[in-house]
Amino acid sequence: MSAKPVRPQTAEGRWEEVEEMRYKAEGSAPFRDITRQVLFGDPALACELRYFEMAPGGYSTLERHEHAHAVMIQRGAGRVLVGGRVFDVREHDLVRIPAMTWHQFRAPDDAAFGFLCMVNAERDRPQLPTAEDLAALRRDPDIAAFIRP
Amino acid sequence: MSAKPVRPQTAEGRWEEVEEMRYKAEGSAPFRDITRQVLFGDPALACELRYFEMAPGGYSTLERHEHAHAVMIQRGAGRVLVGGRVFDVREHDLVRIPAMTWHQFRAPDDAAFGFLCMVNAERDRPQLPTAEDLAALRRDPDIAAFIRP
Repeated sequence: MSAKPVRPQTAEGRWEEVEEMRYKAEGSAPFRDITRQVLFGDPALACELRYFEMAPGGYSTLERHEHAHAVMIQRGAGRVLVGGRVFDVREHDLVRIPAMTWHQFRAPDDAAFGFLCMVNAERDRPQLPTAEDLAALRRDPDIAAFIRP
Repeated sequence: MSAKPVRPQTAEGRWEEVEEMRYKAEGSAPFRDITRQVLFGDPALACELRYFEMAPGGYSTLERHEHAHAVMIQRGAGRVLVGGRVFDVREHDLVRIPAMTWHQFRAPDDAAFGFLCMVNAERDRPQLPTAEDLAALRRDPDIAAFIRP
């Protein structure tokens, strides 16, 4: 953590002294064209604030976990699967991902899509869907079209 | 907390099912034209995410506390006192308020100014400056001009 109290935005979705990181280890889970930045990861705070950004056509991993996510869309518009439904969301909308709820974010094909995510610093690891979980999710045609392969 | 996973922004700095609250009890501390909204205050999360907005000319209380603040400017531009300096900040800039650090936010005279603030759900109460604290802060002419009466 920098000692500087202010870290300016340097370009849309980029900040001084904030490292753009890979989303996850390549091959560890399905995802596409998404980066991760930790805006605040401070031992004095019980949560982290991260910024995730997808390039056009990008998506996050379809997953669930015991910990909750508090999300604010920060750049552009996209779609999110949460609580058994697919929602259109846009800049500044709020999204709550409850415990053990399958969720995935998708950028549109023609624009970047970014969101803030507040999460407990101490948390469990995400779970990937089994073949049975995927079959159950795909029973809803909207969800089947959203999660694709 | 609403059971709805998505709460859309309804106007700039306003959200569905999020109550605009007074900043603090009137007379409990100096402040002006500032409101508070809790965007996420969820027992499953160890932090809260709040949104504070000042009308033109508004300001937050000059205060300090043991807990830290993680701030992202969200609307417009303004100024912040933190760590013995006054900074100009604008939309999406990040501001860290460390423990026991005097801080205050001020909107410009001609525009609203809003910021997100992540904070531990369990935290100590803010402390107001004593006459001696104010005299010490005012030794710096930039800070004296900023904190005013």
